[in-house]
Amino acid sequence: MDMDGVMADLYEQLFDWDERDSGKRKTWEDVAGRKEKETFPMIRHYLFCEGFFRTMKVMKGCREVVEHLNTKYDLYITSAATEFPLSLPEKQAWLNEHFPFIGWQQMVFCGSKQIIHADIMIDDHFKNLDVFKGEMSILFTQPHNAHADNGKHIRVHTWEEIAKLLL
Amino acid sequence: MDMDGVMADLYEQLFDWDERDSGKRKTWEDVAGRKEKETFPMIRHYLFCEGFFRTMKVMKGCREVVEHLNTKYDLYITSAATEFPLSLPEKQAWLNEHFPFIGWQQMVFCGSKQIIHADIMIDDHFKNLDVFKGEMSILFTQPHNAHADNGKHIRVHTWEEIAKLLL
Repeated sequence: MDMDGVMADLYEQLFDWDERDSGKRKTWEDVAGRKEKETFPMIRHYLFCEGFFRTMKVMKGCREVVEHLNTKYDLYITSAATEFPLSLPEKQAWLNEHFPFIGWQQMVFCGSKQIIHADIMIDDHFKNLDVFKGEMSILFTQPHNAHADNGKHIRVHTWEEIAKLLL
Repeated sequence: MDMDGVMADLYEQLFDWDERDSGKRKTWEDVAGRKEKETFPMIRHYLFCEGFFRTMKVMKGCREVVEHLNTKYDLYITSAATEFPLSLPEKQAWLNEHFPFIGWQQMVFCGSKQIIHADIMIDDHFKNLDVFKGEMSILFTQPHNAHADNGKHIRVHTWEEIAKLLL
């Protein structure tokens, strides 16, 4: 499963940092259906800033469901991290803090996810799910994908829905 | 392909650091057929030391062959790195310095390599090659594997041999 936009609340972080810099807080409605880089002018800068990945909030309901999934599945965290060098240690520290039951053996920090072999993938990006060759691909709703659909994936809006689907 | 013991000369680094601490330089013959932890008493300490991964030498002949392979294959670097937090940024910086033609998209820093999906794997550890489900698994000779063989993998001793096999 993916981190940003699935386990870690990337948009809350973007709303916070963008509000700090612009003086006005955007809402889900403001950004839905548009790419992150179109709605957050400073995003490329944020992605290289110390603390950006380290201080994200955990997505609502995620911790409990992941802890449960971890007892039933051979679970791996697959996060695109190599594009942003600071994100590597920050993402690992974030996982260790919020998900201490996930071992280093289960962490995968990569660029392209084409190399990932698994049965089920949970991600918020079509580019990752579309090339996935496993049995089930789950699209986690985030503003950038909210208005798109290609009929290939199971869409979920919350971790509660993931629990219903997989537990 | 793997980094330590394949692209990066882990044993040269261990010989250097062990000599610095013990006052005597070990040889390939001293360590062949034995696990690293049996022959280098301080290895667990080194693996958590700043600079250990960052300053490794590139394996002889590796750079030229990898550059050539990179034009012919869809190449990924798959390195076990999440066990040693410092190794994540150091390994990425090392790749950027010595293999600037390898993009962040091609880097995978993981724990277990069971999740890797590829056609060919080059590694120096049986534990990684034995669970690999691709078409060809290549064992790169290093002291720890020098006296073992399970008949499942193609053994190579140098990057020249890899070039002959794959180019």
